[in-house]
Amino acid sequence: MEKLYSYLQVCCDRDMLKIPDHQVAGHEAGVGKLGPLIDDSGRFYKPLQSDKRGSEEVAFYESFSSNTEVPEHIRRFFPIFYGTKVMKASTGSEHPHIVLQDIASSRVNPSIMDIKIGARTWAPEASEAYVAKCLRKDRESTSIPLGFRVSGLRVYISDESGFYKPDRDVVRKASPADVKLLLRKFISSNPSAEMETDPDCSLASSVYGGPNGILAQLLELKAWFEDQTLYHFYACSILFMYEKGLALKGASSNAEVKLIDFAHVTECQGIIDHNFLGGLCSLIKFISDILTETTKLTVENGQIEPEES
Amino acid sequence: MEKLYSYLQVCCDRDMLKIPDHQVAGHEAGVGKLGPLIDDSGRFYKPLQSDKRGSEEVAFYESFSSNTEVPEHIRRFFPIFYGTKVMKASTGSEHPHIVLQDIASSRVNPSIMDIKIGARTWAPEASEAYVAKCLRKDRESTSIPLGFRVSGLRVYISDESGFYKPDRDVVRKASPADVKLLLRKFISSNPSAEMETDPDCSLASSVYGGPNGILAQLLELKAWFEDQTLYHFYACSILFMYEKGLALKGASSNAEVKLIDFAHVTECQGIIDHNFLGGLCSLIKFISDILTETTKLTVENGQIEPEES
Repeated sequence: MEKLYSYLQVCCDRDMLKIPDHQVAGHEAGVGKLGPLIDDSGRFYKPLQSDKRGSEEVAFYESFSSNTEVPEHIRRFFPIFYGTKVMKASTGSEHPHIVLQDIASSRVNPSIMDIKIGARTWAPEASEAYVAKCLRKDRESTSIPLGFRVSGLRVYISDESGFYKPDRDVVRKASPADVKLLLRKFISSNPSAEMETDPDCSLASSVYGGPNGILAQLLELKAWFEDQTLYHFYACSILFMYEKGLALKGASSNAEVKLIDFAHVTECQGIIDHNFLGGLCSLIKFISDILTETTKLTVENGQIEPEES
Repeated sequence: MEKLYSYLQVCCDRDMLKIPDHQVAGHEAGVGKLGPLIDDSGRFYKPLQSDKRGSEEVAFYESFSSNTEVPEHIRRFFPIFYGTKVMKASTGSEHPHIVLQDIASSRVNPSIMDIKIGARTWAPEASEAYVAKCLRKDRESTSIPLGFRVSGLRVYISDESGFYKPDRDVVRKASPADVKLLLRKFISSNPSAEMETDPDCSLASSVYGGPNGILAQLLELKAWFEDQTLYHFYACSILFMYEKGLALKGASSNAEVKLIDFAHVTECQGIIDHNFLGGLCSLIKFISDILTETTKLTVENGQIEPEES
């Protein structure tokens, strides 16, 4: 650990830290703005939020990383935690950071979607004021009707066109029908303009489907959430990632599901996280419906045989 | 239908209608008080609530009973609907009633538990005032922490002692730990006083366990809720019923799960009822934990071999 820290310090001194370009939601670093940084060694530096959210996120990572009741196959859904560190922040001044695995570091042009899970983004013991604030956001977004809301996304189009990355305000105001469209756009390979109205879902089976696809990973998480009574994950996000470049070449899309943002995690005693689980099941139904529709469409068009998933 | 109605009328004229003694929650009939009635032919007459809740419950039963997308094996979880009828109510005056199957009519001293499912008892489109009212009740009860709350129960003790039936106020104020205790008391056969502090859970495997037990039925419902996008069941209850007299004789306990109270059901489009499903999964975890604990205890005491469930 000694050694890691001294190396990080060197990076910092030499200004090798960068603002990540793969962030689709949350606070972004900028001139005088506090936000996450990454380095070339695959580390992600998240500034501690100044209120108790920062310390609670650290407390979660410390508890989680040493909790022997978390099955090994579930750990892969979480970023690796390397501790905390006071270092030069994106604002230029010293600030404490959580040091995590940069989950996108080894990827080429990853398409990314950030989905906040749960109809309710507040814990039972939250204050009246905090409940009112969250409830308003939950009701204005799709959190209440769908059990989740899309916080942001970017979909790789091509080296020339870059990414399809709708404005945050547009994403925030998405209706349930819009959310379904976003989940379809995410695995489409139309040019940008066509994708807006009629996403082709051409990558559905290679990203959402198959034994290593996103649906399979979500079902693995679901099985754990049906049983685990260790943590309740309020306002936590699920991240979908894959590489369209690989998928279009017929290689594995490297589809991956990660959980992020643990500033509102609480420990629980003998009670499952029914709020997260309900939202997760709702998301699973959306993904599984898209797979069913696109597989059916493919067969009807006589293109290819449906894949077993 | 003509014939049924004339028969009901005769019952009514002859004052053969009775106040059910097996009701554990909801409005109860009494002198000048509107409440459900039953007759000797196995019908249950539920007075229409005067606001739109009454008409919405009728609309649900009409939609559900003719909906060909509801699988046959799921219908058994719902009371049979026989239509509506204006008849002499428990208050003595004429009032419209929903005519349903009396789901307890053929049972001897049934033990019954009424559990309102869902962390949220209001629909997304509810008014601010209604949301505030429900949210307060959801936060004051175990609905928010557990995803369900116990609305009432009665547990048969013996012909001499009658039923263990805690006061509604006590049930309403139950903590998560109290709810676990109630779910244990429900399948215990101690005398009344002992049950209060140390329920023996002697009937766990014959009521909650086994291929026809309550857990198996809840899992069947869960599989449907993971997929169905026909209805969202806000403020709906699950009823557990069984006959302790049979169970103590070593016969089948006649354990049964029913859904009741559909005044706040809404139709939905392509979205699962993640609120109901989350609460149902939470309840399933409680029941399954009780089964695991009691089976383990039985083996440790060297009494009997654990049952396969």
